[in-house]
Amino acid sequence: MSNSENSLFVERWSPRSMTGEDIDDNDLMSLFEAARWAPSSYNNQPWRFIYAKRNTENWNKLFDLLHEGNRVWAKNASVLVVVISRKNFEYNQKPSISHQFDTGAAWANLSLQAVDMGFVTHAMQGFDYERAKIDLDISESYEVMAMIAIGKRGPRENLPPKLQEVEFPNDRKPLSEIVMEGYFRET
Amino acid sequence: MSNSENSLFVERWSPRSMTGEDIDDNDLMSLFEAARWAPSSYNNQPWRFIYAKRNTENWNKLFDLLHEGNRVWAKNASVLVVVISRKNFEYNQKPSISHQFDTGAAWANLSLQAVDMGFVTHAMQGFDYERAKIDLDISESYEVMAMIAIGKRGPRENLPPKLQEVEFPNDRKPLSEIVMEGYFRET
Repeated sequence: MSNSENSLFVERWSPRSMTGEDIDDNDLMSLFEAARWAPSSYNNQPWRFIYAKRNTENWNKLFDLLHEGNRVWAKNASVLVVVISRKNFEYNQKPSISHQFDTGAAWANLSLQAVDMGFVTHAMQGFDYERAKIDLDISESYEVMAMIAIGKRGPRENLPPKLQEVEFPNDRKPLSEIVMEGYFRET
Repeated sequence: MSNSENSLFVERWSPRSMTGEDIDDNDLMSLFEAARWAPSSYNNQPWRFIYAKRNTENWNKLFDLLHEGNRVWAKNASVLVVVISRKNFEYNQKPSISHQFDTGAAWANLSLQAVDMGFVTHAMQGFDYERAKIDLDISESYEVMAMIAIGKRGPRENLPPKLQEVEFPNDRKPLSEIVMEGYFRET
């Protein structure tokens, strides 16, 4: 990192240890508010967020979709969010080639706003996508993208030993492997 | 917006009028550096960025892919970037259900870092995706996602009249249409 980059981007990572405390509704809505301002093709805004706060009747419905490997730590999230994406444009019902890309941008906004407010986020693919569609009444017009655990960061020691070993920010590929001038080169 | 949201998210929009000035390499790399830190499934980092700066031999190769409607304004961008996404995981070559979503997160990071540095960005679908694969030697392992124009914001008056009319930030759906507690509701 040079000094030019906003610190939000490197401060954001995906811890698993969370404190299990409740989240304030205003805080939660601020996260979605940031997501809301993401760019999208034809401003179609394909993203939708289905959430369940801990200690509410909806919590188990989302939590039960998770694979066991995620349950062991996501049980201490403050809120779980299933992110879905509208497959067709609203204005003409034609398939959007970028709806997932657009919804990914909204997720990034949410994750960065979370950092700014002292929350941590962890996106998961380890849950039952098919059952999510049924249990959450998700229309066929939408594709299930990910489930996100959001909470306050907890101590590393609260995790099972195997997860403690990976409770640190991941590294990234060097720019030379992801940035190419003029044409594609396999790296 | 309440006061809790970081201003980056609302300051980011997609102007078309750009000044046509060159971009410094360090600035350009800072944008990619922000993108690099996005989250991705299994930290697979499926995003790749193929760029061409104006006044370089590569510029026309990317510029010529654009539809006429985008050429009229994108000609004043400082750099064009074709964003592509790896379809399979690197570690096992199995299809990734979230690679586009992940690459969209990297694009959001880039766009927000641009705001932070006084640049504007505008993502486009109006270009020849198939020809991009050929002209830029893009491997079949990757999917073309979008082309991004990046530059310094220019005066609205420099645009053709029709584009002047849409040179303002778009509005967004209210949270009540994109955020749902417990289960999906069509809005």
